[in-house]
Amino acid sequence: MSLIVQKYGGTSVGTPERILNVAKRILETKKAGNRVVAVVSAMSGVTNRLIELADKVTGEAEPTEREMDVLLATGEQTTIALTAMALNAMGEKAVSLTGAQAGIETDGVHTKARISNISPEGVHELLNDGNIVILAGFQGKTPDGKITTLGRGGSDLTAIAMAAAIDADLCQIYTDVDGVYTCDPRVVPEARKIDEISYDEMLEMASSGTKVMQSRSVEFAKKFGVTFEVRSSLNNNPGTIVREETMSMESVVIRGVSLERAQAKVTISGVNDLPGTAGKIFGAVSDANLIVDMIVQNVSQTGTTDISFTVHKDDVAKAEKALSPVLAELGDGVGVEAQDGIAKLSVVGIGMRSHSGVAAEMFQALSEAGINIKMISTSEIKITVTVAEDQIDEAAKVMHDAFGLAG
Amino acid sequence: MSLIVQKYGGTSVGTPERILNVAKRILETKKAGNRVVAVVSAMSGVTNRLIELADKVTGEAEPTEREMDVLLATGEQTTIALTAMALNAMGEKAVSLTGAQAGIETDGVHTKARISNISPEGVHELLNDGNIVILAGFQGKTPDGKITTLGRGGSDLTAIAMAAAIDADLCQIYTDVDGVYTCDPRVVPEARKIDEISYDEMLEMASSGTKVMQSRSVEFAKKFGVTFEVRSSLNNNPGTIVREETMSMESVVIRGVSLERAQAKVTISGVNDLPGTAGKIFGAVSDANLIVDMIVQNVSQTGTTDISFTVHKDDVAKAEKALSPVLAELGDGVGVEAQDGIAKLSVVGIGMRSHSGVAAEMFQALSEAGINIKMISTSEIKITVTVAEDQIDEAAKVMHDAFGLAG
Repeated sequence: MSLIVQKYGGTSVGTPERILNVAKRILETKKAGNRVVAVVSAMSGVTNRLIELADKVTGEAEPTEREMDVLLATGEQTTIALTAMALNAMGEKAVSLTGAQAGIETDGVHTKARISNISPEGVHELLNDGNIVILAGFQGKTPDGKITTLGRGGSDLTAIAMAAAIDADLCQIYTDVDGVYTCDPRVVPEARKIDEISYDEMLEMASSGTKVMQSRSVEFAKKFGVTFEVRSSLNNNPGTIVREETMSMESVVIRGVSLERAQAKVTISGVNDLPGTAGKIFGAVSDANLIVDMIVQNVSQTGTTDISFTVHKDDVAKAEKALSPVLAELGDGVGVEAQDGIAKLSVVGIGMRSHSGVAAEMFQALSEAGINIKMISTSEIKITVTVAEDQIDEAAKVMHDAFGLAG
Repeated sequence: MSLIVQKYGGTSVGTPERILNVAKRILETKKAGNRVVAVVSAMSGVTNRLIELADKVTGEAEPTEREMDVLLATGEQTTIALTAMALNAMGEKAVSLTGAQAGIETDGVHTKARISNISPEGVHELLNDGNIVILAGFQGKTPDGKITTLGRGGSDLTAIAMAAAIDADLCQIYTDVDGVYTCDPRVVPEARKIDEISYDEMLEMASSGTKVMQSRSVEFAKKFGVTFEVRSSLNNNPGTIVREETMSMESVVIRGVSLERAQAKVTISGVNDLPGTAGKIFGAVSDANLIVDMIVQNVSQTGTTDISFTVHKDDVAKAEKALSPVLAELGDGVGVEAQDGIAKLSVVGIGMRSHSGVAAEMFQALSEAGINIKMISTSEIKITVTVAEDQIDEAAKVMHDAFGLAG
């Protein structure tokens, strides 16, 4: 008998019919001789409707975050009750628990709280009594009883954290895709589902455009050694297992190819190469809540240098505005220039560590295909380049082929 | 500085615009120098939508009551968050509390739990910090943390119980009418709003068709001596104060006239006048969850007797079905007969205790108006009769006039 944590997202529980399907799947898991904790999200669309209501009663003002959490937490509370009563109607023992009832304690940072502690005694007790436990994702409470929510990807985090707390044998993240693919199958039709991937590879793929899961849940799983499976709620295919890396994983040089469109490059030129300059620039960008990536600075030859970074193209105007006071401060001759129409291409694999020449192979394959590289940035297990956006699909195919990912 | 508990029902918070109006009214009460706890219901329509969802996921089976409570409790949780954030957006300190967070403990009878204890320390603390407290009506938790709901009229009960627990100076029940009237103004246009009424009168009026509040909330108020006011959320008119009776209240013989339509009379005839017979009959009716009223049995002359009672006309078939096994048991010659098309008329007043002849006056006035009385039943402060349903409006006018209620 295994102890299994399953997580079903908003689309999987988006209608009463889908909730019934999820209930059937949970029931099958139980009938196969397992104990089950199922984490569910708010029905898709519900959160947006609640946010609309909040906007209507607060007008110009931002809704207060404490109350936003109280409001949004009703979304998952609705789903847990419906899922548990559906199982009850099927003759099965099942009880719902809110995050607070399940002992999920967080800090007090409303709308993006971090889990600080889980007291799983109540969950264990219910399981020992033969119950299926239906747990609200995305939410918890502070030590003094305030309702909190965990922010984006919060339900995945609930599942992984609860799996760690109750020492589950398996954690299954059900979603609307079959798992993690070697590349987006809409771009590269030969893309294969990856059977097994390491936490680090999953993190690098998530951060470079493969949007199966939020990085924070993978980081949490890595920290607590929770092996989990990403799989589809629409079929019974095995998914992708995400786990600590093994020796055998290293034999694969590149695990997958990620791509991210609609990027822009911002270059600040003529910067005096003095300590603190980059700090000033990126402090200003960060204060404007912009997500920058691929920061590149070349070695200075003349005492001045160029610093480039990428942002989403919709954020260019914001970035220029945020930089304008800094530019004035940096003195004469400093200019800023932005260029959109670019995309990012990344290859990821822990095998890179022990295989040299991956970058060379990548650059050569792209060059042979007539694709020009504009920026390059590397980490231990990832190489990212920018290319013209209208060449990104071709570039992804070339990479997928060059590293033999179709198998 | 007074401590005021206000309660706003589902219609008063039925749209974002109405929530804003309620928030303004709460704010005015605070600005007038008071401390405020506002109890709010689910937005009108929400509860029905949740019940529909529950029906869809449970099909033929009844939704389990534990999960129904988890589901329904989201209704008030949504309203408290919206009301508190509306006040926050107006620049006011306000925080929401669910029933559980406010320390409202109940027994474990899901969907109709009874309040067993309130720990008001948290509410006091928030008030002392200068907050308006927005409290979810209708809900509480068991000592071990299960979510419960209080059943019909539960939000009124929350307000009155919290007013008792925090020793509030005033408890205002906001509704869509100006208060309790001497009779339904749609029937008797001269009906007046009653300024002051005793708990007992309010209870008798509630139980005989004046549906301003559920009896259980009034009973709770009586038990704990909570004076409360029923008033409109649509204007600033003073409402009706409900309180312990005073000497001066007795000078009014009749406080009001209640009426209830769509009734039926069920008569069981030829019953042997033996101990336990009535118990069997009403045991069977009660087991079928039927609400009966006006049980009348005449003194037996021949060893057999007739027992009559009234039920809502829609419940006649159920009553006959419930009685059928009992009739067989009671022996030959016992028959059951039902007649609908009747209505109940009640006059209520604690002044009756010290004024004789009220019944005679009532019967005579009805007789003079050509209205035939079918059944009569009396309590210490109420006289109820049944009349033909098509004569009930006329009967109510005659009574209102006979006892000078138009003032």
